[in-house]
Amino acid sequence: MIRRASAEFIGSALLAALVIGSGIAAQALSPGDTGLQLLENAFATALGLPVLILIFATVSGSHFNPVVSLVEAALGHRSWRDVAAYMPAQIIGCLAGAILANLMFGLPAVSISTTDRFSWPHLLAEVVATAGLVLVIFALARTGRGSVIPWAVGAYIGAAYFFTSSASFANPAITIGRTISDTFAGIAPASAPGYIAAQLVGGALGLLLVRGFFGRSAQAAGHDQQ
Amino acid sequence: MIRRASAEFIGSALLAALVIGSGIAAQALSPGDTGLQLLENAFATALGLPVLILIFATVSGSHFNPVVSLVEAALGHRSWRDVAAYMPAQIIGCLAGAILANLMFGLPAVSISTTDRFSWPHLLAEVVATAGLVLVIFALARTGRGSVIPWAVGAYIGAAYFFTSSASFANPAITIGRTISDTFAGIAPASAPGYIAAQLVGGALGLLLVRGFFGRSAQAAGHDQQ
Amino acid sequence: MIRRASAEFIGSALLAALVIGSGIAAQALSPGDTGLQLLENAFATALGLPVLILIFATVSGSHFNPVVSLVEAALGHRSWRDVAAYMPAQIIGCLAGAILANLMFGLPAVSISTTDRFSWPHLLAEVVATAGLVLVIFALARTGRGSVIPWAVGAYIGAAYFFTSSASFANPAITIGRTISDTFAGIAPASAPGYIAAQLVGGALGLLLVRGFFGRSAQAAGHDQQ
Amino acid sequence: MIRRASAEFIGSALLAALVIGSGIAAQALSPGDTGLQLLENAFATALGLPVLILIFATVSGSHFNPVVSLVEAALGHRSWRDVAAYMPAQIIGCLAGAILANLMFGLPAVSISTTDRFSWPHLLAEVVATAGLVLVIFALARTGRGSVIPWAVGAYIGAAYFFTSSASFANPAITIGRTISDTFAGIAPASAPGYIAAQLVGGALGLLLVRGFFGRSAQAAGHDQQ
Repeated sequence: MIRRASAEFIGSALLAALVIGSGIAAQALSPGDTGLQLLENAFATALGLPVLILIFATVSGSHFNPVVSLVEAALGHRSWRDVAAYMPAQIIGCLAGAILANLMFGLPAVSISTTDRFSWPHLLAEVVATAGLVLVIFALARTGRGSVIPWAVGAYIGAAYFFTSSASFANPAITIGRTISDTFAGIAPASAPGYIAAQLVGGALGLLLVRGFFGRSAQAAGHDQQ
Repeated sequence: MIRRASAEFIGSALLAALVIGSGIAAQALSPGDTGLQLLENAFATALGLPVLILIFATVSGSHFNPVVSLVEAALGHRSWRDVAAYMPAQIIGCLAGAILANLMFGLPAVSISTTDRFSWPHLLAEVVATAGLVLVIFALARTGRGSVIPWAVGAYIGAAYFFTSSASFANPAITIGRTISDTFAGIAPASAPGYIAAQLVGGALGLLLVRGFFGRSAQAAGHDQQ
Repeated sequence: MIRRASAEFIGSALLAALVIGSGIAAQALSPGDTGLQLLENAFATALGLPVLILIFATVSGSHFNPVVSLVEAALGHRSWRDVAAYMPAQIIGCLAGAILANLMFGLPAVSISTTDRFSWPHLLAEVVATAGLVLVIFALARTGRGSVIPWAVGAYIGAAYFFTSSASFANPAITIGRTISDTFAGIAPASAPGYIAAQLVGGALGLLLVRGFFGRSAQAAGHDQQ
Repeated sequence: MIRRASAEFIGSALLAALVIGSGIAAQALSPGDTGLQLLENAFATALGLPVLILIFATVSGSHFNPVVSLVEAALGHRSWRDVAAYMPAQIIGCLAGAILANLMFGLPAVSISTTDRFSWPHLLAEVVATAGLVLVIFALARTGRGSVIPWAVGAYIGAAYFFTSSASFANPAITIGRTISDTFAGIAPASAPGYIAAQLVGGALGLLLVRGFFGRSAQAAGHDQQ
């Protein structure tokens, strides 16, 4: 259990360092060009996220995301005891990773973000982004295609940076981690609760879709097609 | 059947949200730089499309495209009854996805596109783009390499955004969906019928090429080479 | 034989349409920004080339390149009779694809390129680019990893657009095809013979490296490491 | 042994030509736009590095990096005698590749870099970058997923160009090679020892993490989860 929770901690820290660090670099290297900044941020995330998932997949399952842990438990693939250990590891890991990103770029270890991201369209986008994330992970996991998950998740998040208006956080732990970096990838603490609520709603919606399309009985029915 | 058609509906909606949403983001983030806009749009599509195909592949086959359904039926891999259920699901799905993209970015739910795209070179490009799409899908499907199709289709469309002049819609359902978003990825309703006609011609051309190179007898002859 | 040569013809035409078409689009969409133009051109090529290779791999082996056909014959994997049929198909295919690209973008079907590319550093770059291309294809083919070749070749060429100074044509047929499009990806006819000579030298160098590292006896010796 | 060391030499030379050559191209094509330059450099590296690893994987293991060789020996997968032959081949290879890159772009064969890169945040970044590189390689190697390593390493380095502040050299041999190209990817000789020391520290940290998460006993314990 300690080894699994440690993997979630380190993986979440590296995830936060990845998304926040590449955001800091993008902002510094491409000042004033927000499109290019997001392309650089998305490029780095789409490439780096699969690698982090690959590293710890055989240890903890590489969730790095409380919504994923909750859905996995709800589907009966993971014990609730694991979830209780994973969630704090994910949140503290993302906070540690934000500090690491700040330090790697010579910034103060902690600076509270002032980026206000609250808006109703953003919350709708977080619902969609998180439901889609849950759908891709468990569609693949429940149809024997687990080895594709790392690349599919990286590609999904890279795309979602652009096709949602909210930059697709889709993860309560990373949302909390992003509050302590007042940089490109940050989010003001006041905007965080709305994002997290939307992510939980999206996770529940994703769970319903997984049950509908990839539930035990649905699967059985599906086997007659190739 | 309902489960399969529902998968086509949701997948088509997410496809429209992906291509239109990333187009809206690109336009907003990189104003005046159409090259960077198309790169962002193509980047998001090349990454996101394989994920959508992966999600529903085991349920409906992940067509999200009437031309693909028609060709699959013509090749005898899918019943015409399925096609009759898939096509409305694809079209209504793409319309729903366009609305979702508009709402995620705080735009009116529906705004008729004013982007005139009609020209003879564009129609030639749509013929080429759609024939190529049919060719890649069924070349792989008919040679036992189906697991590569999602990534190959995403890569193909990402490339075709650039190598065709028409931005490679290659899909009548997405063409219809794009008419109700007056944004980067939109198409004026008056330009849609020409695009759709060219896509049907391209689908027929692709079907001929598939039959010629990957027909049953052609396959048998091909087995003596490795 | 006719089926195989036809596959080389169509694949070569689509290859030329891909690299020239995306070059025309890049030039039109990102005027004056040669870095972004090459990134768009390389992005489209890295994604599209693997798809073309995948399509015809089981039919003709998807060479689309006289150097690859010559090396394959020299290594004893392909008959010289095949090579004699493939080479004209590749050259005429690339010319046809250049015309198709020009027409898709509303340009005159043929316009002789005025882009002078001759320089000694460029010829050195073509030697390196072509030797590397031969090395990657046959290293993988001769170690039982043929299914990776399409993606590896696409990635290699996408990278080589940047790490060589010559934009890595690495293919006599595409060099000839590029002479009839006076656009971003074109090459003046006077520069073509030097490029082609350098590509043949590179192919010979690649063949030597393949024989040294992946020759039959070398392979046998290599099997004791994992 | 000579064949294996030769593979390390040629692979390291091509690696240096890749990262330095694409850096030179990026600087020349996108003057003044450091964000776009790094994106081009990272794009080329993320695509080209997997190909180089694929080519020589069955011959030498495709290290091209003294830290990787040292860690592999420390884990008992490679003899120290191999390491003694690999390390000079890697260093001399990277120097040769830097010269090749300079020559391909018509620059003097050798020009000592004047890019001062020393700073404490940069050293922290090199520790993180190298530890992560070691972690991804050996996490995959020790869990039977070796065929994914080439793509994972390319993706990791492409991401790390952005998420670290130091551009993630993560390799003493390439650090030495980069000292003789006074271009975008160069590093002043006075900054090199600090980078190399940080890389060795990162390698040791990575080794600890690999032992903790993927050690023999850890693996045994891990097998009860899927």
